[in-house]
Amino acid sequence: MLRDSPYTLISQSSDCRARRGYVTTRQGRIQTPVFMPVGTQATVKAMRPESLVEMGAEIILGNTYHLFLRPGHQLIGKFGGLHEFMNWKGSILTDSGGFQIFSLKELAKITEEGAAFRSHLDGSKLFLSPEDAVDVQQTLGSDIMMCLDTCIPYPATHQEVVDATALTTRWAARCRAAHTNRDQLLFAIVQGGMDSKLRQNHAEELAEIGFDGYAIGGLSVGEEKELMYDMVEATTPYMPDGSAKYLMGVGTPEDLVEGVWRGVDMFDCVMPTRNARNGMLFTSKGRVVIKNAQYREDMQPLDENCQCYTCRNYSRAYLRHLFVSREILIITM
Amino acid sequence: MLRDSPYTLISQSSDCRARRGYVTTRQGRIQTPVFMPVGTQATVKAMRPESLVEMGAEIILGNTYHLFLRPGHQLIGKFGGLHEFMNWKGSILTDSGGFQIFSLKELAKITEEGAAFRSHLDGSKLFLSPEDAVDVQQTLGSDIMMCLDTCIPYPATHQEVVDATALTTRWAARCRAAHTNRDQLLFAIVQGGMDSKLRQNHAEELAEIGFDGYAIGGLSVGEEKELMYDMVEATTPYMPDGSAKYLMGVGTPEDLVEGVWRGVDMFDCVMPTRNARNGMLFTSKGRVVIKNAQYREDMQPLDENCQCYTCRNYSRAYLRHLFVSREILIITM
Repeated sequence: MLRDSPYTLISQSSDCRARRGYVTTRQGRIQTPVFMPVGTQATVKAMRPESLVEMGAEIILGNTYHLFLRPGHQLIGKFGGLHEFMNWKGSILTDSGGFQIFSLKELAKITEEGAAFRSHLDGSKLFLSPEDAVDVQQTLGSDIMMCLDTCIPYPATHQEVVDATALTTRWAARCRAAHTNRDQLLFAIVQGGMDSKLRQNHAEELAEIGFDGYAIGGLSVGEEKELMYDMVEATTPYMPDGSAKYLMGVGTPEDLVEGVWRGVDMFDCVMPTRNARNGMLFTSKGRVVIKNAQYREDMQPLDENCQCYTCRNYSRAYLRHLFVSREILIITM
Repeated sequence: MLRDSPYTLISQSSDCRARRGYVTTRQGRIQTPVFMPVGTQATVKAMRPESLVEMGAEIILGNTYHLFLRPGHQLIGKFGGLHEFMNWKGSILTDSGGFQIFSLKELAKITEEGAAFRSHLDGSKLFLSPEDAVDVQQTLGSDIMMCLDTCIPYPATHQEVVDATALTTRWAARCRAAHTNRDQLLFAIVQGGMDSKLRQNHAEELAEIGFDGYAIGGLSVGEEKELMYDMVEATTPYMPDGSAKYLMGVGTPEDLVEGVWRGVDMFDCVMPTRNARNGMLFTSKGRVVIKNAQYREDMQPLDENCQCYTCRNYSRAYLRHLFVSREILIITM
């Protein structure tokens, strides 16, 4: 790009690819490795921005597809962007919308030009080109934008993977050309299906075009865990070490450790918040299913090693009571 | 009772019965007139205790019936009481359970001894005597307890009202006799249906027994607003002026003004929180139905005269977006 990399390395493990560093956006520094909470519809479900800050969140995600449909990026643009609209002073990464459009399956049609699709809300016909994806994200004012990519189903034939990956490269180049607001960073997405060689080639092709950071897309789409880890391990060495490496849509606590070990700097996933809403909580000692009768009279905090608001102030018995009583306070903790 | 009244008068209007004062509980002072948010199941729906404090809440309600069933008052007692269990440092008033049992209709049977009823959760047979109601509330450790009363349907025959009111008096005397923890206040409930004379007599009878405060029950049960106001107006002059006067289960913003005008010090109602969850918001300029299209691009705060967290930080357009998108953050504001 036209500037130095926004990624700064602090230290590199000598035992594995794990590393500490930070990404600098116009909002400030994001310490890495980082897990980014997902705020699909201009809100991280049930969380006040202040609670996110208290938890240590320096960056959250927004979903371009959802915001494009509702309330519309133009409306958010009128408010001065997503930060202003939702009262979030940290950094925001927006995805390109590609993954959601891909998830629409028969409602979407991909051509060289872009993605034609129908809104899941009202069935209206819509179209998103790579240029549109950048334009929408520039209007949203996110700090890190993602190139529009083609998501590859799993399983897929070799030719399908080759074609979709090549199209992703052409779209990435178009995104880069459409990128006019250089205060916003633009990351490219490595595809290549479950083929190490294709992923390596793709990472190198994208690096040649030059972006502010690089993501691994198209994983955690139904494949075995070991295959996912193998793909990450095969890809990260071919992504520029001077840039941040982001594994999209991953994952469990174990996945984060496995990813960091293989050189990933950034992660996002809806799982922790979605699971918590369903009563499955992650602790330093493992998973807790809070509705279980064993917690009925348990005066301990959820996690005695945790200093968060919930662990500081409430017992497992109280959390269980809220969950069993279907009280909504539990999802705001 | 065995102590001075916990109510202190600050000033009395010369134009009407409205008055400023405070009620002193072991947790501190509650400035009156006061609207008390309802925390049925050991939580004010979707509100962190810190948010209630920020809003200025000095006292909240808990529902004895609900807590008796789930998680059980004994469990809460083991935690040191409701304050500890739910992390609320202000005062708590618990109702007696009478109103909820009355609402069970055919699932409840009232005798001289007390109220037999079936749990709405699992159908189990339960019984609550006036002594039990006090015992449960003493175990919950609320700061203000309510006597078990008989709730009178509307409409009801004269004899039904006379009998139920007389039973309420006998139960109130039993509650007073069962009241052993004098750190907790005990309020009695004036019944008398829609008959001014019966209400006046009942207020005087209860005052003769002597309680820490007095409530008006059995209103807002389906009668016309004007009749409710008339009943309040007919009753408050017969309640001891040296004690707090509490109008139970009321009401709209207009009702609060009408009640204060007639000498009421304390109110509670689920309406503001329930309406808010359904997108109907009270402001200083009247009601706002936030989903209305007119707010789609409205950058104003909900209420420009309000300094609350929501009004300080969010636009009407953002609130509308959250509501229309069914995002749960809106119910936590």
